[in-house]
Parts: sequence; C-alpha cells; structure tokens
Amino acid sequence: MTARTAAVPTDALVEALANPTDEEIAPLDAWWRANNYLTVAQIYLGANPLLKRTLVSDDIKPRLLGHWGTSPGLSFIYAHATRLIGKTDQQMIYLAGPGHGGPALVAAGYLEGTYSEIYPDVSQDEGGLLRLCRQFSAPGGIPSHVSVPTPGSIHEGGELGYVLVHAFGAVMDNPDLIALAVVGDGEAETGPLEGSWKGVSFLNPARDGAVLPILHLNGAKIAGPTVLARKDPAEVRELLSGHGYEVIEVEGDDIPGMHHRFAAALTRAWVRIREIQQSARGGDWDGTRPDWPLIILRTPKGWTGPKEVDGQRTEGTWRSHQVPLSGVKGNQDHLDILETWLRSYRPEELFDENGGPSELVRRANVTGDLRMSASPHANGGLVTRDLEMPDFRQYAVDVPTPATVKLESTRTLGELMRDIYRDNDDRFRLFCPDETNSNRLGAVFEVSDRMFAETVYPEDVSLSRDGRVMEVLSEHNCHGWLEGYTLTGRHGLFATYEAFAMVSASQTIQHAKWLQEAEHLDWREPVPSLNILLTSTAWRNDHNGFSHQGPGLLQNVITTRGNIGRVYLPPDANSLLSVADHCFRSRSYVNVIVIDKQPQLQWMTIDEAVEHCTRGAGVWEWAGTDDGSADPDIVLACAGDVVTMETIAAAEILKKHMPHFRTRVVNVVDLMALPRRKDHPHGMDETLFNELFTDHVDVVFAFHGYPGAIHQLVHGRPDADRFRVRGFIEEGTTTTPFDMVVRNRVSRYHLVMDAINNARRTPPGASELKAWCQMQLDKHEAYVVEHLEDMPEVRDWSLGDGSV
Amino acid sequence: MTARTAAVPTDALVEALANPTDEEIAPLDAWWRANNYLTVAQIYLGANPLLKRTLVSDDIKPRLLGHWGTSPGLSFIYAHATRLIGKTDQQMIYLAGPGHGGPALVAAGYLEGTYSEIYPDVSQDEGGLLRLCRQFSAPGGIPSHVSVPTPGSIHEGGELGYVLVHAFGAVMDNPDLIALAVVGDGEAETGPLEGSWKGVSFLNPARDGAVLPILHLNGAKIAGPTVLARKDPAEVRELLSGHGYEVIEVEGDDIPGMHHRFAAALTRAWVRIREIQQSARGGDWDGTRPDWPLIILRTPKGWTGPKEVDGQRTEGTWRSHQVPLSGVKGNQDHLDILETWLRSYRPEELFDENGGPSELVRRANVTGDLRMSASPHANGGLVTRDLEMPDFRQYAVDVPTPATVKLESTRTLGELMRDIYRDNDDRFRLFCPDETNSNRLGAVFEVSDRMFAETVYPEDVSLSRDGRVMEVLSEHNCHGWLEGYTLTGRHGLFATYEAFAMVSASQTIQHAKWLQEAEHLDWREPVPSLNILLTSTAWRNDHNGFSHQGPGLLQNVITTRGNIGRVYLPPDANSLLSVADHCFRSRSYVNVIVIDKQPQLQWMTIDEAVEHCTRGAGVWEWAGTDDGSADPDIVLACAGDVVTMETIAAAEILKKHMPHFRTRVVNVVDLMALPRRKDHPHGMDETLFNELFTDHVDVVFAFHGYPGAIHQLVHGRPDADRFRVRGFIEEGTTTTPFDMVVRNRVSRYHLVMDAINNARRTPPGASELKAWCQMQLDKHEAYVVEHLEDMPEVRDWSLGDGSV
Repeated sequence: MTARTAAVPTDALVEALANPTDEEIAPLDAWWRANNYLTVAQIYLGANPLLKRTLVSDDIKPRLLGHWGTSPGLSFIYAHATRLIGKTDQQMIYLAGPGHGGPALVAAGYLEGTYSEIYPDVSQDEGGLLRLCRQFSAPGGIPSHVSVPTPGSIHEGGELGYVLVHAFGAVMDNPDLIALAVVGDGEAETGPLEGSWKGVSFLNPARDGAVLPILHLNGAKIAGPTVLARKDPAEVRELLSGHGYEVIEVEGDDIPGMHHRFAAALTRAWVRIREIQQSARGGDWDGTRPDWPLIILRTPKGWTGPKEVDGQRTEGTWRSHQVPLSGVKGNQDHLDILETWLRSYRPEELFDENGGPSELVRRANVTGDLRMSASPHANGGLVTRDLEMPDFRQYAVDVPTPATVKLESTRTLGELMRDIYRDNDDRFRLFCPDETNSNRLGAVFEVSDRMFAETVYPEDVSLSRDGRVMEVLSEHNCHGWLEGYTLTGRHGLFATYEAFAMVSASQTIQHAKWLQEAEHLDWREPVPSLNILLTSTAWRNDHNGFSHQGPGLLQNVITTRGNIGRVYLPPDANSLLSVADHCFRSRSYVNVIVIDKQPQLQWMTIDEAVEHCTRGAGVWEWAGTDDGSADPDIVLACAGDVVTMETIAAAEILKKHMPHFRTRVVNVVDLMALPRRKDHPHGMDETLFNELFTDHVDVVFAFHGYPGAIHQLVHGRPDADRFRVRGFIEEGTTTTPFDMVVRNRVSRYHLVMDAINNARRTPPGASELKAWCQMQLDKHEAYVVEHLEDMPEVRDWSLGDGSV
Repeated sequence: MTARTAAVPTDALVEALANPTDEEIAPLDAWWRANNYLTVAQIYLGANPLLKRTLVSDDIKPRLLGHWGTSPGLSFIYAHATRLIGKTDQQMIYLAGPGHGGPALVAAGYLEGTYSEIYPDVSQDEGGLLRLCRQFSAPGGIPSHVSVPTPGSIHEGGELGYVLVHAFGAVMDNPDLIALAVVGDGEAETGPLEGSWKGVSFLNPARDGAVLPILHLNGAKIAGPTVLARKDPAEVRELLSGHGYEVIEVEGDDIPGMHHRFAAALTRAWVRIREIQQSARGGDWDGTRPDWPLIILRTPKGWTGPKEVDGQRTEGTWRSHQVPLSGVKGNQDHLDILETWLRSYRPEELFDENGGPSELVRRANVTGDLRMSASPHANGGLVTRDLEMPDFRQYAVDVPTPATVKLESTRTLGELMRDIYRDNDDRFRLFCPDETNSNRLGAVFEVSDRMFAETVYPEDVSLSRDGRVMEVLSEHNCHGWLEGYTLTGRHGLFATYEAFAMVSASQTIQHAKWLQEAEHLDWREPVPSLNILLTSTAWRNDHNGFSHQGPGLLQNVITTRGNIGRVYLPPDANSLLSVADHCFRSRSYVNVIVIDKQPQLQWMTIDEAVEHCTRGAGVWEWAGTDDGSADPDIVLACAGDVVTMETIAAAEILKKHMPHFRTRVVNVVDLMALPRRKDHPHGMDETLFNELFTDHVDVVFAFHGYPGAIHQLVHGRPDADRFRVRGFIEEGTTTTPFDMVVRNRVSRYHLVMDAINNARRTPPGASELKAWCQMQLDKHEAYVVEHLEDMPEVRDWSLGDGSV
C-alpha cells in the first residue's frame, strides 16, 4: 500500500480545533450528557426510559448490573474524538480498554444511529430506547462489556490487557487510520498491557497508521486504588515518556473547562501525529523513532454520578465502579437520588418527542463510515481482500519414495511466505518472538526485513524501519498484534515455540470466543483466520529440556466451540504446504499448525499430500501389510511428525519380523477429523471413520500431544475404548529426540509391543519380537547411562542401524 | 516475623566496599575468569577440560549447545555480589532472568563447592570437572538453563518473564533477604516482566526484604537487537525511574575498570537498601514509597569471547547469543580460536594440580549458607515451618438436612483464612487480582489490610502499607509472587476468576514442571503447595458473559505429571473447608480448588464432608433410589457445585415421577480419584471405582468443565464408553445460571432424559417423563425470549416452583 501523504493541518484548522466555540460545545456536551443518561438508564431502567413521569420502584430492573465508573470518561473521549473527525475527516476507530464501560459504547453507537441500523428493533424512539435498556446485561441481551455485538468494536473488554496490542495491530499497514485506544488504570496494571506500550518501537509512520493512547486515570478498580493513579504524577509522566511517548495531560471535572482543555489536548495530539506522518511520508524523516503523543486524562471515577450515597463519598471512589446506588427498588432515598441523577443530564434537551436523539445531540455526530461505531476497519471482513496466493505446489519437495528425503519442512513454508510477502506488501505479516530464522522461516527476509523503529546499526542484519516481519520477544504482543491485524481485515501468521504458546493461550481462547460470537451476527463479515504455527516442539527440544516441552495448547483449542478451532499436524513439507495454503485462504478460524523445524523424513508427494490433507486422515498402504482383503490385526494410527516416524518404524519392524501380521497404518493430519460430525464440522462421517479404523479392531494411536486429547476426540466413536493412545506424558528433559519417545513410551519398540498386546490374534514369533523390542529398549537405556552427550541425536527408521 | 533492624553500614565499610583494593580484585577477577572458563568448557569440551595439552578435534563435543552470550555478565555480577556478602554477611539469593546462562550459574555453584556437596560425582577435581562439562545440555545430564537441578535457584530460566515476580515473592515477609534479580534485555520485552517492575509498589521496607534488580543490557536476543538496548539511554532511565527506582548505571568492558565501577555501583545500591530499611524499621519513615535502587549494567554480549569469527563481528552482537564458534570439530581455525579463547582466562592460575579451583579462586568465595548457591532460602523446604492451623471444623456450616441451607460457601473459607492470617503473620498470604471481597473472602480484612506502598488516603478502606493481603490487577504478579513465596518456604493461596486463570496458565504449568523435577532431587526439600482457588465460574457469570466463561485451566492441570496436579470441586462450604485444610497442609502440589462464590445449597455436615473428601468421591444415598439390593438402572455422577445441584434435582425428578427407577447418585470432589491408580496416585482402586460406578451400568456424568476432561480421566476404566458426560460446551453468554445449564445441555431436564435414554431398562412412564422434561425446556426457552431481564436468576431444586 502506498501510504497517502497525511496533510499537516493549516494553522487556522488547528486554531479552530483547539478552541471550540460555545456553539460547538453545546451539541458536544449534549451528546455527552445523552450518552451518560443512556448509560445510567441501561444499568437501572426497565421502564419509563425517558422519565416522562416520576420514577417509581417498578421502573427499576430487578437486578442491577453494569459498570458506571469508567463510562462517563469513555463517552467524554468519544464525543471529542467525533468532533475531531467531523472537522478533519480523520479515519478513526475506538478501542475501549476499560471494556466494562460497555453501556457508554453501546450508547455511542445508538446515538450515532449505527445501532439501530444493525439492530432495527433497537430503534431511535421510545420503544427502541426501552429495548436498549432492557437488553443490557440481561439474559438473551448483551453483555455488560464492550463485546462482539457492539458496533465499532474490535476489542472485547472482558479479559484486560490487550487494548494496545489490538490497536497497534489494527494500524499496521493502515496508514490513514488512527486507533484511539483508551487504557484503563486498572488494566494498566496487567502484564500484557505494560508490555504493549512498546508498540511504538515497531511502528513505521510512513507505512503504518497511528495509535493514540489515552490513559484514563480515574483512580480505582473494583475495590481499591490503582498503582498509576496513586503514584506521583511526575513518575507516571516519566514512565510513559520512557516508553517513547510525548505526554499530554488533562485533569479535572469542571464543565465546560474540561471540554476546552481536552479539545486542546486532543488537537495537540492529532497535530503531532500528522506532523510525524508528514515528516515520514514527505521524505524528510531522519529515521529517529518519533515520540508519539499520548494523553493522560484524569477524571473522577463515576464522573457526574452521585457525589455521596448513604453518607459515603461515591463519585471519585471505587464505590462508583459498578452500580453506585444499590437496592434502588426498595429504597426511596436511592430512588430519589437516581431520579435526580438522571434528570441532571436534562433529558428533555436530549431526546425528541419520539424518544430519538434530539437535533441538538445529533448535531454532534458525524455521518456514514466516519462514525467510529460504523468504521469498516472495525468490521474487518468488509475491507478484507484475499491474498494474492502463489501456487503452493511450486514449493513442493520432490519425494520419489516415502522416507528417502530428509529436510527441514518449515523451510518450504518460509519460501511460500516469502512470496506471499512479496505479492501482498500491504496485507500480510508474520509475527514471531525473535525466532523467524530459528524456525527456518528466514526466507521471508529475502523480501522483507524485521521492523524496528529504534536505532538500527549498519551491521544489523535484515533489520530496518521498512521491514514488515514483526519480531518482539513477547508472545502477548505477537498474538495481539495479529489479532488486531486480522480483525481489521488483513492476513498473517503467529509462529512460536510450542511450549510458549501457553503464554498467550488465554488470548487464543478469547479470540476464538470472539469469532464464535461473531458467527451469530450477520453484520459482522468473516475476517481472515488467526493462524498459529507451533514449532520447536516437545519432542525436539534436545538441550532446552523440560521447560520447553509442552503441547498443552492443543488441550485448549480442541475445546473451542465446534466451528472455530482447527488443529493440523502435517507430518512433512508437502502436507505443511497444503495445510498452510488452506489456512491462509480461510476465514474466521483459529488454525493451529504443529510441525517441528528440524530435518525430518518426507513421506508424501505434493499430490498425495493434497489428497491426504483434503481428507484429513488416510491409510498409508505402503507402510502397512494390510491388503484390504480382511480386517487388519491392528491399526497403527499417528498424528504428528515425530510420532509418525516412530509409527512407520514400528510398522516396518512388524513387517520384517512378522510379515503375515496385518498392520494398517493411518495418519491423521486434521485432528478435528476424529470427532463425530455432530461434535465438529470437520468430523469424518462414520463410514469413513470405520474405513480407516474399523469399528472393532484395536487402534494403537501415537499422538504428538497429551494422550487424553485423543481419548476426548474419539469419544462416541464405535468402541472408543479400543483406542490405546501413546503421547506426551511429561517425561524427559534434556535428552535426544529418540530418548524422548522412549521415556514417553511412544517409541517404535513400545508401539510394536502395544500392537502385539492388543492385536486380534497372536501370530507366531510375537513373544520373541516383544522380547527383542524390550532388549532394544534395555540397550538404549544402557547407552543413555554410559554415553551421555555422544548419543546419536535421532534415530531414523531408515538408518539401518539395527533399530528396525 | 519481627523485622530485624537492618544496620546502616559504617562509613568505613562503605568506603571499603566501594573501593576494592588490588588484593581484593585479584581473587574476584580470577573467580570470574574461572567461571567464564568453565562456561566455555561446558559448551565445548568433552575431554581435556584443563587444557593440559593442545586442544584437538576429539576434545570437542559432538553437538555444541548452550548460550554463551549472557553468561559472562551473570558471573561478573555473581562475583561482585559474593564480595559484598563476604564483607557484610548480607543474606542474598540470585535469580537469573536470562536463564539460558545456565552454565555460568552451574559454574558458580561448582566454584563455591555447593555443587560437589550435592552431586558428589561432580567433584572438585579433574574427573569431576570432566563430568561437569559432559553433563551439560546432554542426555541424562542437565538442561542448558538455570533449572531445578541448579543449586541456589528458585527460578527456571526457560520461559522468560517471571524473574521479578519470583524475586518479590521471595522477599515478602523475609526482612533479612535481598533477592538479586538479573533481568535480561530480551526478557525485558515480555509482558509479564514489564508488568512486574511495580513490585516496589507492594513492598514494605520494614517487614519485607528487598529486591535488587540488575537490568543487564547486552544488546541482543537470539537474532536481533532488543528494544531497551537500542533506546536512548535517557529514555530507559526515565522508564525505570517512572517505575519507582533510583537508577544506577554501569557500562563498559574494560578490566579492571569495570570491577571498580561495578563495586561502587553495587555498594551504592546496597547502602541505599539499608538506608531505606533502617528508616522504615527505625520508625522515622514518613510512609512515602521509597525509590528502590536498580542497576543498569551494559556489557557486550559474549563479553570476553571471540571478537570476530569468520570475518564477522561476534562479541557484542547476537552472534554471541548461543555458540559463537560453530563446527569446531571440523574447523581447525575455529579450534584455534577456541583454544586461544579458553587460554585467555589463564586456566593455570585458576585450577590446582588436582583440577579443583585454585586457592586464589577460592579466596573469592564465602562459606556455608551465605553462598548464594547454598542459600536455604533457595531450597525453601529447609526453612518451611508448618502453618498454625485452626481446627477447620469450627467454621463448619450447620446442615441439618441436605439442601435446606443456602449460603456463599467461600465466605467460610474467608473466615478460615482470616484466622490463618492472624496466627501466621510471618508466613501466609492471599494473592488476588482485586477481587478478595468480590470472591467473599473479605473476612481476611478483619486482621490484615491490603498492602499498598503508594499513596494511601484516609478514606481508603482496608488499605495500608502494613497490609499483607496482596491485590494487584495482574494474574501474572499474583501467581508469580505466590510461587516465589512458596519456593522460599511460605504458604498462600492465589484466588482468581476461573476464566482469567488462563492468563497465568503457563505459569501454572511451568511451576508444576518445577515441582515435578524437584521430586527427583533428594536435596530439594518439599515446599508448600501452590494453591489456586478458581471462583466466579463459568456457570455464574450472569452478566459478564462469554469472555468470563472458561473452565479451561482444568484441561491443563489434569495433564501434569501424576504426582503434582490436584483438582478439587467441593460442592459446598463444609467440603470446601475440608479440602482447603488439606491443601494448606500439603507440600509440593499444585492444588486447584473450584467453587463458585454465589449463594448455593449446602449438602453435607462437616463430618460427612470430611469423610467424603477423604474418599474423593462417594455415593449420596439420600439423593438416589438405589437401595444397594441390585444394580442401579443408571448412575448419575457429578463434579462441581452447579452441576451437582442439577444432578440432585434430576434425581429428585426421577424419584418423584418414576419411584421404582433405581438411580444412584455419585458426587466426585477429588477429580484425580477418577483415573486409574497407575495414572495418578489419587486414582481409586478398581474395587472402589466399581462400587461407585459399577462396571457396566451407564453413567450420566454432569461435569463442571469441558466434558472431554472426564473422557480423558476415565479412560481405561471398565467399559469407559458408558460414561455420558455433560459439561461446559462453550454455550451461553450473558444469561442466568439456569439458562447456562440449559444452553450447555446439563440441566436437570437434560440429565433426566439422558438417564432414561441410557438406562438398562425403560420403566413405565419413561416416555411421558421425557416429554414432560422437553416441555419444561420449551417453557424455559419461551420464557427467555419473552422476559429478558425479569427471569429468576437461578432455580433451586428445592424451590417448589414446578421445576422438579
């Protein structure tokens, strides 16, 4: 994408922006009051939403839920951002870190008209207003947070900590966009949020848009004060300045003073952004990372709410966090306070005779796509363009016969991604914690550097401010940036060490939840999938040891609701290409691909791989001895690269030692082909399942992850008890890959013994073969004890070293 | 614990500390060189460890693994810290954030003698030295990171981000301890690390010890530069100053200059700590949060290593991160560089004729428990004192008959913890993200405030610098602090919203791995368990909705290796008391307790609860109709509070409508009683299992979490396919608890229909009852659509509202 040169505003415009006239403030303030009114109404009112009569107990909802405290600040910012947009046509989206302020953002969309366009029954009249109130935080209604049903949102406000990563992801390769990101002072205490200020160190002002963080300090979280609110303000300034920001501060609760001061602050921030962009886009940028503007807004928690309730200070304290007035139904005093509170916003000025927003309020709106609640950037499917995808077959590895070629499969993925980068320089990025080369994906550096906005030295390799490969040693940033990037309609991949995928597991789950909810909403268009590559797996962390061994994320992904989570375990390069091509083209899934980065045997030609991946699982006839004329004696199944090799080796041992033993080898690429179709849309139908696994022959299943995952997935399949699963059982630490499979009892020898023990018949020679296998394991054990680091790092089934 | 008054050092001591003489520097520098030598030797040498002859290819290990880059800085700091300890008797432990620097910390323990005391075969002679080299990063040996086998460590250096949380946890209630925490500049990019600087905002200088962070900026991570290393140093100072630190900087690579400058810096930091502590403990502290000292140490990556390899700059770049010289075995040029490198440390001065550390080197050591590698604080089991536990029975709830009393069960836990706090004011803490009251544990505030070192206002409630309840809106901090606290021998609980336990899931897993590894090491004494309370569960997040619904952590905990992970699902207050008492007394487990905070029906007297929890699972005869005279027609099993209520209600419906249908109700408290004993030590033996579940009658199992977890756990039990599990299937969002169980198909009506569908016989009236159940569900559905927020929030089985 060629970044448009962002025009620096004229002095006159700046002057006008920074100094709102009374005529401008009137509608702006009315809009804010209307928003606050609607926020309070959503929390409290089940009837009488326009206060056409005195409030009575029956008007009050039976349960009072929601969060008042942060809301007035959120709507205050929203109103001013809208004014800026109106005067500048600036494209802007709004991310509410304090997501509990859901009612304020819902009210904003309602006042802008977007809400009624999307949800016609919540119309801009008294009936719609009542529905707006009654749906809030109610069964069958909407959550109390900013959430998927909230128009204009790409950020669920439930689990805290990700507002800045989403904002930075949204503006990458989005030069005309400003993501206004409100950071709550509670949220600011979380690790992921603190780790995300550094987004500016990875932002290119020429190519990317801008994030405008507004740290909204209102002093308290649920039950106590926050660190940033109680620190010396000079320290807070230092902190944020140290993160790379030019700090602009606004504090107070006086109106109209706050309108004037905040308008000036917002203008200053916006002008600064334009200056930075103009400098970078106009070519007179010296390359120094700019100090991006940031606003600290200090307002009382529960601003404009009740000052005191039952003799206790309320506005400005944690007591305003949720519902400052409790028990209103049965407490006339509280009911009176509530009515006074609501009427303090002068609803008669805010709503017309039909109950819709008054002309005064509407005057504060902008129109069409400029409305933040209607921004296409926040409904990314609307602006998604397919990737220009090269034919993945051109990267295919030549595999004349199975198990003769050995190479690092992820290198071919790197080549595919290199060309995707080349052909999509405005809508594809790789996100990785400093491991792109380590993961053998380094081919991408042939066409794009790593992005780095801090000092770059001449001797640095593949590092520049023009790079678009995103490396930061933070899974939270990588994951979150990709979320923001895809939710605004672009494509990418997060590649990480398998074990450390657990660092961001909660993000994976929450994103899957977002996509699940979005499926139910017609107006949300499907967005590119979140693709996660897990490499450096448990089986091949030879020297790193136990802390680097953990296939746990699969445990979490297989429990995501049916249509979202997909898990692929391609065993070689060609199947990886086929899977990756599918994932990059897909929409609204969480695709997890698991494959190691080390040299590994190749099994399939590209044509075989495509067919195999399309089916999700299949019989590898060449590997077994089952000719299809009768039931096999055993099914050897496998999913995952290392355990596939062990399975093939086991089949080979059985073939050699007991040629009349009928072994069928089944490889599973698409893990979600295993469950019943009623449990997952990828599930094989029962006929196919039985063609592979029969409905009664025992299955020895060698699995990449925890065995229990397979037990879960095959539950309900015919005679599921017959699946004997071997997999990662948390054994081993610093050792060879072969020793890893031995310690976890999934080695070729274990599989052979399992096959014999569970076979339908015991052929001649079985007990001798079991003894031979045990002898191999004993020899291995002795070897480990004696040889330490001299052990061969891995045993191929094809080594001819006596292991088969 | 009464904090000892930390003496402020005399001027003479400060002067001596800050200005090391040449006589002092000689052994210190020799120790450092010896450490560096051993680090290089561990990475490269499989023979000839003392370089008694010219290095040859056969001396080189077949695989070169390990991380050189960070190691010389780590050992430099270690050497100086030891000097400080020697002159001051300061108790200190060393946490290496850049855990890849394992060889440096192993070498430190070896030079101090601790290593050989613990591992006698790694003796202080040539044979031991060879073992030291050969075991490193080799099968059957030790990981390349600082890890559990490393003496003096409480911090695995694999997954990055937690060094400061562990350090702060270690010094809480540990007034005489300084935790020296080295933060790597790669690690400093992670979210958890950035979120953990704020530990100083929760530290009481009178009661707690001190953390001395050393930010070790060496410029690069695996493959590129780091943000902090490339920012303007003034910005880095601002950032850390903003976090609340007094920044002390040391930079360079010149020797002996660096020894002098670092000694002065370390002295300044230590004196500052003593001044802060003296002020706080002497009573003249005004309460302002002190600026704690922090050192920024800038040294080249791979300091003292090869300056250039193959024409490329190596020292000071990412090329020094791991193994700066590759392919040494077959490259005489590299072999020569390696020999020159090793000899640059003058090994002849460093080792005596036997191969042990020379007298010069040993002169730099301190002795006994003052050695950081031998600190009892880093082997917390040595200093663990049992909790003074009140008799939990005194908090028992009176339950005259099941299902008649309704209350918030966690309140009783709060009362128990209040008295544990009272009686153990030096060794018990609760860690919670701002939800202590919300989780109904607020009774603890009767005896302890929340700890807060930033400004406290008079109107704040239960908040002071003397508090010991730890509330910070960061699961990473809460979890990590508790880890540091328990690993140094103290006790506690981390209480959090169930869904957000996934934020710190990786910490849970990594801590379980630590405990697993520690089990194999005789010298590591068992430490208090890591207790996690999950509340605000998926079933009762009425208004928060889908982002707050996620029982995923159980998926991860049940896969931890046999002896570590424990999951308890007490269904009521008395069983919670029994479980909590057990967990607080236990050692070296990860105990996860799941129970909701809302009012719930009570089932068991305290005596019944104790018996039930001791067995882990049992038949509730009063709930079913099975008189034991014959097999039941169906087993209704349940685990988890909400689903237990549904199960009891289902049994009641069956009893009422089909009195001759034989229903057996089994409640499971200890989830790990379900697997076979060979899979988990809590596993019931088969006889007991069959007494509860029979070996052939179908089981309808209502589970709190994802159904797949039960499928995993009962795998291998007799006819496991007969377990029909209902649980959380990711349905529902903002709705009532009863609607949640309906949407997830685990309501009483679903369970009744399941029971009938799977029963051994179809009694008269079965189809009518199924139709009635379906009608109830249809009525419910209609109610949801029509009533929105007016729905009753929950339906008790005892409500008599026609639902039973």
